[in-house]
This record gives sequence, structure tokens and C-alpha cells, in this order.
Amino acid sequence: MDFDLLGRTARRAARRLALLDRAAKDAILLAMAAALKSDADSILAANTRDVAAAEAKGTSAALVDRLRLTPARLDDMAKGLIEIAALPDPVGRSDSSWVRPNGLRIEKVTVPVGVIAIIFEARPNVGADAAALCLKSGNAVILRGGSEAKESNAAIASCLDRAGRAHGLPEGAIQFLPGGDRALVKEMLRLDKYIDLVIPRGGDALVHFVAENSTIPVIKNAGGVCHLLVEASADLAMAESILINGKCQRPSVCNALETLLIEKSVASVAVPHLAAALRTAGVEIRGDAAWRSFDPAAKEASDADFAAEFLDLVISCSVVDDLGAAIEHINQYGSGHSEVIITNSSQAATRFRQEVDAACVYVNASTRFTDGGQFGMGAEIGISTGRLHARGPLGLQQLVTWKHLVSGNGQIR
Amino acid sequence: MDFDLLGRTARRAARRLALLDRAAKDAILLAMAAALKSDADSILAANTRDVAAAEAKGTSAALVDRLRLTPARLDDMAKGLIEIAALPDPVGRSDSSWVRPNGLRIEKVTVPVGVIAIIFEARPNVGADAAALCLKSGNAVILRGGSEAKESNAAIASCLDRAGRAHGLPEGAIQFLPGGDRALVKEMLRLDKYIDLVIPRGGDALVHFVAENSTIPVIKNAGGVCHLLVEASADLAMAESILINGKCQRPSVCNALETLLIEKSVASVAVPHLAAALRTAGVEIRGDAAWRSFDPAAKEASDADFAAEFLDLVISCSVVDDLGAAIEHINQYGSGHSEVIITNSSQAATRFRQEVDAACVYVNASTRFTDGGQFGMGAEIGISTGRLHARGPLGLQQLVTWKHLVSGNGQIR
Repeated sequence: MDFDLLGRTARRAARRLALLDRAAKDAILLAMAAALKSDADSILAANTRDVAAAEAKGTSAALVDRLRLTPARLDDMAKGLIEIAALPDPVGRSDSSWVRPNGLRIEKVTVPVGVIAIIFEARPNVGADAAALCLKSGNAVILRGGSEAKESNAAIASCLDRAGRAHGLPEGAIQFLPGGDRALVKEMLRLDKYIDLVIPRGGDALVHFVAENSTIPVIKNAGGVCHLLVEASADLAMAESILINGKCQRPSVCNALETLLIEKSVASVAVPHLAAALRTAGVEIRGDAAWRSFDPAAKEASDADFAAEFLDLVISCSVVDDLGAAIEHINQYGSGHSEVIITNSSQAATRFRQEVDAACVYVNASTRFTDGGQFGMGAEIGISTGRLHARGPLGLQQLVTWKHLVSGNGQIR
Repeated sequence: MDFDLLGRTARRAARRLALLDRAAKDAILLAMAAALKSDADSILAANTRDVAAAEAKGTSAALVDRLRLTPARLDDMAKGLIEIAALPDPVGRSDSSWVRPNGLRIEKVTVPVGVIAIIFEARPNVGADAAALCLKSGNAVILRGGSEAKESNAAIASCLDRAGRAHGLPEGAIQFLPGGDRALVKEMLRLDKYIDLVIPRGGDALVHFVAENSTIPVIKNAGGVCHLLVEASADLAMAESILINGKCQRPSVCNALETLLIEKSVASVAVPHLAAALRTAGVEIRGDAAWRSFDPAAKEASDADFAAEFLDLVISCSVVDDLGAAIEHINQYGSGHSEVIITNSSQAATRFRQEVDAACVYVNASTRFTDGGQFGMGAEIGISTGRLHARGPLGLQQLVTWKHLVSGNGQIR
């Protein structure tokens, strides 16, 4: 693998991409969407090989399902590209401008980040989405998918690259690194000369590997250990509805709930009520000692259960002394993703919003809304649980940086 | 060194700092400014010990001068704190807010980053400035100064911490790591659990060491290899004035000029004119072959000279074929800091602004204006040559992150 060539090619492509206007980028995206449909047969054939290999290895049915492409899923992938074409161009936006007393005019405008590497696992559609978002924001992209989807990812990347280049996409704007060899990733993570940003999208092991080994800036999409707090003044029916939605609507995603906290003063009513609702929905309850004093049927929760992202129909539960104790629990065990309080007290809501440290802090609504589409931002590459550059949904507006344009007529210091 | 304790203490302090309002933070800053004056004797005595040790080691006069504190410099340091108190609070600003069709209200507000480590060299005033900027933006700070200023840095940090805590500064909000042992820094750079951001401020060796060893996000303040391009339509008198200002007014800083490029079509007039002006100002000229064909007295420039940040009265010079070649040279050798074109052509100006990849791109003004104060942003910790989170002057507005506050009345997906 000639990483220097890979990097130089990507950098050169990035310089050309930065100059493309919106119409040019959208035309490329629409050509790519069309190609995903016209190349459907070969992409689906590649995917069939991946699925067969996964099944032969005894991969779980859930994972095989995430890996499998169908004509309908390929259509959705194409629709995703068309939707990204319809979004506003994040490049060239004037962030602010001002004139100094000496007459210098300063304008801060958005420009592409440059070269972005996306390291992803499992679902092959992530590669197409990520490539489209990078292209729309004027960035060159290096895609590195997981080994389990290596044939599918290669087929999709080559389809997008070929269709794009026939419509003005610079050579090297979409490059593809085959999955399977972590040593290659490790080497790529040191190309800080050529790559400006790495976005890992996958499990915690992947995210940690990247953070540990990268000399390139990383935007983490780590897991969500999301909490729901039933405050003393909460409407119990609303708490039940938001709890069941957050835990059960799609347990395998990062904005699903993992922990339920109930204030002691309402525990004698709220614990039995919500425990029954959870059990009816098929959720396994793991409670601390205080919880089990109100719900003896619960399993015993370990400390690790409170830090766990179950991604399954399991929930850890605790009865907390008061709002302060709840906030402390969340700031200790939470992953800074999405947290919600159910309350009718504006004072409690304000304190929760101020003191809980997370990308998204909710009052009386489901954490399942933490999503670029649901937030009205359009498609996203993930949810950043890091604190720098982007926090929360990572969409087009977060894939740019800035340039200060300073104009004068001879000013010196 | 108990790094776990250091980190936990800083995190706890950060949670409390995030809740302080502007009046509380400003009162602490003013108390610190007063303490720098009332503690002047002991700070100056500590500095005298550093200066004596540096002189005994044979440190250059220039470095000793940067190290030396005087009552006037201490006064300036105090004034810097008072100025930071007068700046607007960057925390709690509403970045944007919107309402979704389902009635969810989303507000993106600024919050402190959390815990910031500042690793700096040489001038002891950097520690006070950095601590004040972090405090004003609600961040806990861990300061790590260079070994040459270890007594001065310790005296200043302890003065600020003591004065601050007497006025409500949380314990651990300003912590200090003594200089001298790089192994300690290396260990600190892995505390990603507790530290949210590392800002190295110093030479390239320091910046690379940090980028190489940190698992914490880094905002680089690397050097500036800044170019001035004399475009074909340039006003030669303006070019001379901006060139001499950029190269000579303060050669040791990152926004000083290091390279002069002249378009071939005007070289026969511009090269002799500007070479004479540079020599009159005492600047050593290192030219490429094309340059020397117009200025045979110039020394020969090596390729390394074009990548060098001289920080001295030395300049590398090249005659380039056209605007495109100039832009290519800048994007190849520049460090992405500040670049300037001297031109009377709006077309050339537009192309330069679009294609040059740097934090600050100037038309007809000195690169020496790249500075938080000169930009009207107030005090700064440095100039970011990185592309993520902050690019250009790194002031209060860049020391925050965001939180999404989502309010509903029971919405679920």
C-alpha cells in the first residue's frame, strides 16, 4: 500500500473539490445515485458473497441482517444521495464579518476541512452516505469499511467513483481502503500530513483503537449510555411513554435509553408502575439495592451495568436521593450523548439542563430524537460525543472549517 | 505525581466553574490582577532565580530577555487579566434555536469545553493569560510551563490560585505541573478521561511532541511560514511597505513573513526594487535560480529555506511563473497561517482568496495583523494552524463547545 501516494492524491483532489460550486457537486451526487441503481446487479452480487462468507463463519443473524443489501435498501441508499444533493451547500457561508478601526475588513467564511478518513463497520450504506456528505461539503474522502463487508464496500465505492468521475469528480476524491488488516489502518492514522480528520463510526473498540493510534484529529462517535430521570413532579404517564419509546423502539442504537433513575420521594409509586411497563414490553430490569427495595423481582445491578451500553432489551435502574444525586450519577456514568428529565418543575428542568454534561439534554421528550434528520439538519455521519469542533449530530455544517479573508489598502502595523 | 487525583480534581472544578456567572468570574479575575501586583516581590524574586540559572547555563541573551520579568511586565500581565474581565462571557450564548414540526424546541448554546491543559515555553506571562482565558470561558486549566521558567511559573500560578480561591475560584480550577520532565507531560497527554483539550504553545518540537503523544484532542499553534506575493498589477510602493513591515517589524513572531514571491512578468523591476529595500532593512536574501537571475547578489536558497520559519532577518525569495504557480508554491510550503497578495486586480485577489489554503488570507495588508487583539477578538492563547474547532486566533469564543437543549411535552418517535 503506497500511503504517500494515497495521501497526495487525496490532497490534490481536495484542492480541486474545494473549488466546485454547488451545481457541480449536486450533479455528481445525482449521477452517483443513478449509478447505484444501474449497477445494482453487481453490487448485490458482491453483497451476496459477503453474506455467504459471514454465514459460513457463523456470524449472528442480527449482524448478517445489517450486512445484507436488497434492491429496496439500495434504493434507499440512492435516495439518501438525492436528499444530500437537495441540502444547502455548507461551503462559502459567511460566518461573520466586521471592519476594524484601521479599515481592515475581516470576513470569516466556511471552507471544506480537506481530506477526511471515515472508518466504519458493518452496514455498507454508511460508506455511500459518508462519501456523499464529504463530497457535498467539498472534502476528499478515504473510506475504510469492515472486513465483513469488504466486497460490498469495494463495489459501492468503485460504482460511486466511476459515476462521479464521469461527471467531473476529481480523481482521488473518493478512495477506498480494503478492510481486514488493522495494521493498514494504524499506518493511515499517522498520515497527518495529508489527512485532516478521522471519523470512526462503529463500536467502542474501533473508536478507542482510532483515538489511541491517530496523530490526526478524531471526531469520536462513541456509544450512548443515555439516562431517563423521573423527577418528583413528573407526569407518570408521560414518563412511561418516553421510557418505553427510548428503551424499546430501537434498542440497538446509540440514542436508546440504558438507565432509568427515579427520585426517592416518588419511588413507591413510580417504581412499581414503570417496572410493570418495562416487563410488559419484555425488558430485563437490573436494579441497585434502593431500586430492589421497591421492586424485589429485579435482578441485581453491578456497577458495570450502570456504565453499560446494552443495545438490547435490558435496563439498569436506580432510585436516587434527589435531583443533585441524579445529576451526579449521570455525569459519572453517562457518555455525554443524550439525557432526559421528566418533570413538571421548571426549576428542576433548568437545573438539569445547566448541570448535566451531554451533547443533547432533553426535558419531557424522547432521547430517540438525537439524530440529524430528526433535528432537521439532514443526513449525518454520526453523533459526536467528543467536545471539539462538533458535538451532537455530525452533519454537513460540521464538515467544514473556516478561513479569515482580510482586505486592506496597504495597512501595516 | 498522582495524575488520577490531578484529573479528578480538575474535572470537579470544571463542573463548578461551568455554573459561575459572569460577575463571579470577573471578580475572580480582578482579584488575581490585584494579587499579581501585591505579590510582585516574591514573583520577581522567583524570576531572578530563573534568570540567574539561565545565564549560568549560557542561555542566549534573547531567550533570557523573554524570560525576564520586570515590574512593568508584571503590570502588563495584570492589565491583561483586567482586559479579559472586560470581554463578554463566551458561555451561555445561544448559537441557534429552532422548532421542529412536532413541536420540539431545540436550542444550541455554548458551554465550557471542560478541562484544558496548556503546555507552554519561555515567557512566563503566557501562563497568566492562559489561566485567565480559561477561567473566563469557564474551563479548568492545567498549566505546564518550560523548565527555564519553572520558579516564575510556580510563583505566578500559586499567586493566581490563592487570590482566586479567596474570591470563589473552585479548588483545582488552576493547577500547575512543574516543567523539566517530559515523561510527566507524556503521562498527562493520556488523561483523555479527564482532560478535554490540550493546547501546546511553543516551538515546532513541542507541538510535534504533543501531537505525537496525545490521546486528548490538540489544537496546534504551529509556526507560520507566511508568504507575500507581488502580483503583476501590484503597487510596488505598497508591496515594499507591507513586505518590510511583515519581515522586519517583529521577525521573531509567527505572523512575520518568511518568503517573498514575485510574478515573472514584473520581476525585472520588482526584484531589484524590493531586494534593495530588504537589504537596506538588514535582511539576508536567499533566492532560487530564477530570483538570482534578477538579483545576483542573493545567496542561494535551498529547498529547506522555502519551508523554514526563520524568525530572523532572513527571507527566502522566488520568482514564479504566474498566479497559479504562486498559489501552488504557497500551498506546498506554507504552514496554513497567514498569506498575502499585493494586487490591484480583483480577479487575482478573488482567485488568491479562494485557492490559498490558510487560516488568514490577506489582500493588500500586512500579515502582522493575524492576532486576537488586532482582529478585535481580545486576548488569545495563540493562533491555530489546525483546521478543527478553531482556525486562526484562538480567543475566548474558541474555548467553548455546545450543548443542545431540547424541550418537549411528551414527544416520542
